[in-house]
Amino acid sequence: MTTQTIDIHAAIRTADDSFESTFGQGDAAGMADLYTDNGMLLPTGSDFVKGKQAIEAFWQGVMDMGIKNAKLDTVEVEQHGDTAIQVGQYTLSSADDQVMDAGKYVVIWKHEDDTWKLHRDIWNSSLPTA
Amino acid sequence: MTTQTIDIHAAIRTADDSFESTFGQGDAAGMADLYTDNGMLLPTGSDFVKGKQAIEAFWQGVMDMGIKNAKLDTVEVEQHGDTAIQVGQYTLSSADDQVMDAGKYVVIWKHEDDTWKLHRDIWNSSLPTA
Repeated sequence: MTTQTIDIHAAIRTADDSFESTFGQGDAAGMADLYTDNGMLLPTGSDFVKGKQAIEAFWQGVMDMGIKNAKLDTVEVEQHGDTAIQVGQYTLSSADDQVMDAGKYVVIWKHEDDTWKLHRDIWNSSLPTA
Repeated sequence: MTTQTIDIHAAIRTADDSFESTFGQGDAAGMADLYTDNGMLLPTGSDFVKGKQAIEAFWQGVMDMGIKNAKLDTVEVEQHGDTAIQVGQYTLSSADDQVMDAGKYVVIWKHEDDTWKLHRDIWNSSLPTA
């Protein structure tokens, strides 16, 4: 494993820590700031969610559903210059630690202004469908 | 738009054409061959699906559900050497052209043996959830 490989894992872990703590604080505007200016969410049951305002509204909606904590775990990260491709697993839980959803994701990150920002963010639930 | 940008769009379109025609022929083994040896699907309602055998079984299952045609449309493609990141939209339909699902995806492609192969493949439905 090269030094660069170790660094990108650590850098994305730091970015994921910000995601988890910002979400845990219920800060939807802060969540939107973790994305690039032309960032995009690709949520299940919805068209593309584009740009900071729409991303803020989306995460506010998730918080309003009673989801209090988001936990992210990396499966793999691949760096290509200012771009990183992450495959991961997530768990969403309520204030009383009930698991509300668990699934997997791919995030395309862009390195901007000395920080890694989410650029494309797609996920889906791994729980059996009803 | 650089020549390279035009080329990668055309190359991924060619690969998507193979995906559509292989799927349309009901060739699940052929579908698996469109993926890298350590390819991975990230389907809704399932854990990661890893490797050619599991990928073949997954697509066979989709075909067995009566889905006859898959249509793929690129939203954007970004190339980083032997890696390409595609954001797209899909439509799945039955033999009598009923839309069975419509959604969006991110595919990480790898250039291997002179061809682009799907390496990471995640998607979700854009239809409203029940």
